[in-house]
Amino acid sequence: MSLKNIRIVLVRPIYGGNLGAICRSMKNMGLRELVVVKPNSALDLQEAATRAVHAVDVLEQRRQFDTLAEALADCAIAGATTARTGLYRNHAKTPREWAPRFLEAAGAGNKVALVFGTEDDGLSNDEMALCTHLIRIPSSDRYPSLNLAHAVMICCYEIFVASGVFELRKEAHPEAPNIMRERMFDLWRTMMREIGFFEQQNEEHMMMAFRRIFARAPLTEADVNIFMGVARQTLWATRRAKGGDAASGRVE
Amino acid sequence: MSLKNIRIVLVRPIYGGNLGAICRSMKNMGLRELVVVKPNSALDLQEAATRAVHAVDVLEQRRQFDTLAEALADCAIAGATTARTGLYRNHAKTPREWAPRFLEAAGAGNKVALVFGTEDDGLSNDEMALCTHLIRIPSSDRYPSLNLAHAVMICCYEIFVASGVFELRKEAHPEAPNIMRERMFDLWRTMMREIGFFEQQNEEHMMMAFRRIFARAPLTEADVNIFMGVARQTLWATRRAKGGDAASGRVE
Repeated sequence: MSLKNIRIVLVRPIYGGNLGAICRSMKNMGLRELVVVKPNSALDLQEAATRAVHAVDVLEQRRQFDTLAEALADCAIAGATTARTGLYRNHAKTPREWAPRFLEAAGAGNKVALVFGTEDDGLSNDEMALCTHLIRIPSSDRYPSLNLAHAVMICCYEIFVASGVFELRKEAHPEAPNIMRERMFDLWRTMMREIGFFEQQNEEHMMMAFRRIFARAPLTEADVNIFMGVARQTLWATRRAKGGDAASGRVE
Repeated sequence: MSLKNIRIVLVRPIYGGNLGAICRSMKNMGLRELVVVKPNSALDLQEAATRAVHAVDVLEQRRQFDTLAEALADCAIAGATTARTGLYRNHAKTPREWAPRFLEAAGAGNKVALVFGTEDDGLSNDEMALCTHLIRIPSSDRYPSLNLAHAVMICCYEIFVASGVFELRKEAHPEAPNIMRERMFDLWRTMMREIGFFEQQNEEHMMMAFRRIFARAPLTEADVNIFMGVARQTLWATRRAKGGDAASGRVE
C-alpha cells in the first residue's frame, strides 16, 4: 500500500511536544515512518511520549540521521514545506495539489519524503535544494506561519484523504420515491383539514410551501414514515377527541 | 466576507495549550471568532497565550458561556465533530463535504458554528442534539482519535481552502512553444555530436530519449533558455579547446 512508502522527515526539531503530537497525527492518518535529522539535544522525549498518546510506537520506531542528505538518500520524491516566498518558491503547490503525484510515486514502490524544517526558521536554502518539490500550505496573509505539528498534520491529512483509504459509512436508507412523498402530502393535507389549519391559510399555497420545504434536502423513506406516523397519530387523536371512540379514529 | 461569520465553539476545554494552539490555527486560517463553553477552572491561560504566539488577539477576544445552547443561540448552522459512530452518526460528512454548505450559509449572513467537545470524551448526546450537522474527520481505523487542536485545525483549514481566499502565485513563465523546444533539441544534437556523445550511443535513439524526458512535465521558456545556454557554452568551450580561437567558438 502506498501510505507505507510515505516518510515524515523533521529537520532539527526543538520541542518534544511537537514531536509527540506529530507521531499522533501520523498514526491518525495511517503513516508510520518517522525520520528525525539532528534533533535539538534538549528535546524532551518524555513530553514527546506523553503527547504521542497511543502513537508511542511511531515515536519509538523513528530513525535518526545527522544530515538531511542521508535521510533522503533512498527517496525519489522529497516535498519540502515552505511559508516563505521568493526565487523558485513560486513553483510551490498546495499539499492537495501534490498529493496525487506523491501517492502515484509511493504506489509504484518509490520512497516519498515530506520534509519539515525547524520550528523557528524552517529549512535552509541548502536543505531546500535537496528536495524535489515545494509545498505551500494555504494560510491567511495576516498570520501565515503554522505551528510545526499543525503543518505536518495538514500534509498527512491530505495524503491520507487522497489515498482513498477512508470511506464514510453512507446513509443507510434510500431517498423516498415520488409515490411515497405524494402519499405523505395527501395524508398531511387530510390532517391539516381536520385540525382546521386551512381555515386560516390558503390550502394550495400551504401545500406548495410543504412541498418546497421537503424538497430542499434529501428525504429518506424512514423520514417519510416518521412524518406519515405524525399525521396518522394526529388524525387518530383529533377524531377521538371529537367524540368518536378510539376504533373510529383509525386512519386508512 | 463569509469567514467572519464562522465561529469556533469549544465545549469544556481542559488544556490551555490546546486553547492557545487553536487560536493560532484560527488566525492562520482567517477565522477570528472563538467561544468557550464552561472551560475547566484549572485551564492554564498563561500557557494558552504562549501557544497562541501571534494570535493572542483571538484568545483575548474570546467569549464565554455557561451552556452550549447560549453559545449557539444565534447560529443557523452548528456542525458538531464526532469520532464515534452510532445512531444518527452515519449522517456525518467530512469537513470537506460540508465546507461549501457552511460557507454558503455564512456568505448569506448566517452565523455558522463549528463545535468541538472536551478533550477526554467529546460532546454529550444532549450537546450533539443542539447541533444541526455532524462532522467526521477522516482518520485511520487504527487510531481514529485526533488531538483537539488538530481536529479544529483541519476543520478551519477546510473552510479556509473552500473559501477561495488563498491563491498560490502561479508559475511566472509560460510553457515553451514547440518552435523553442525544437531549437533546443537542434542545439543539443549539435552539441552532442561535437562532444562525441553519439560515438557510443545511437543518435536518433538518444534524441528520442531527450524528447521524452523533456515532455514529461511542463517546460517553461526560461527552462529552455537555460538548456540552450548550456549547449552553447559547451560548444564554445569544446571548439576553443580544439585549438580554434575564442571568436571562432561562437555558436550561431
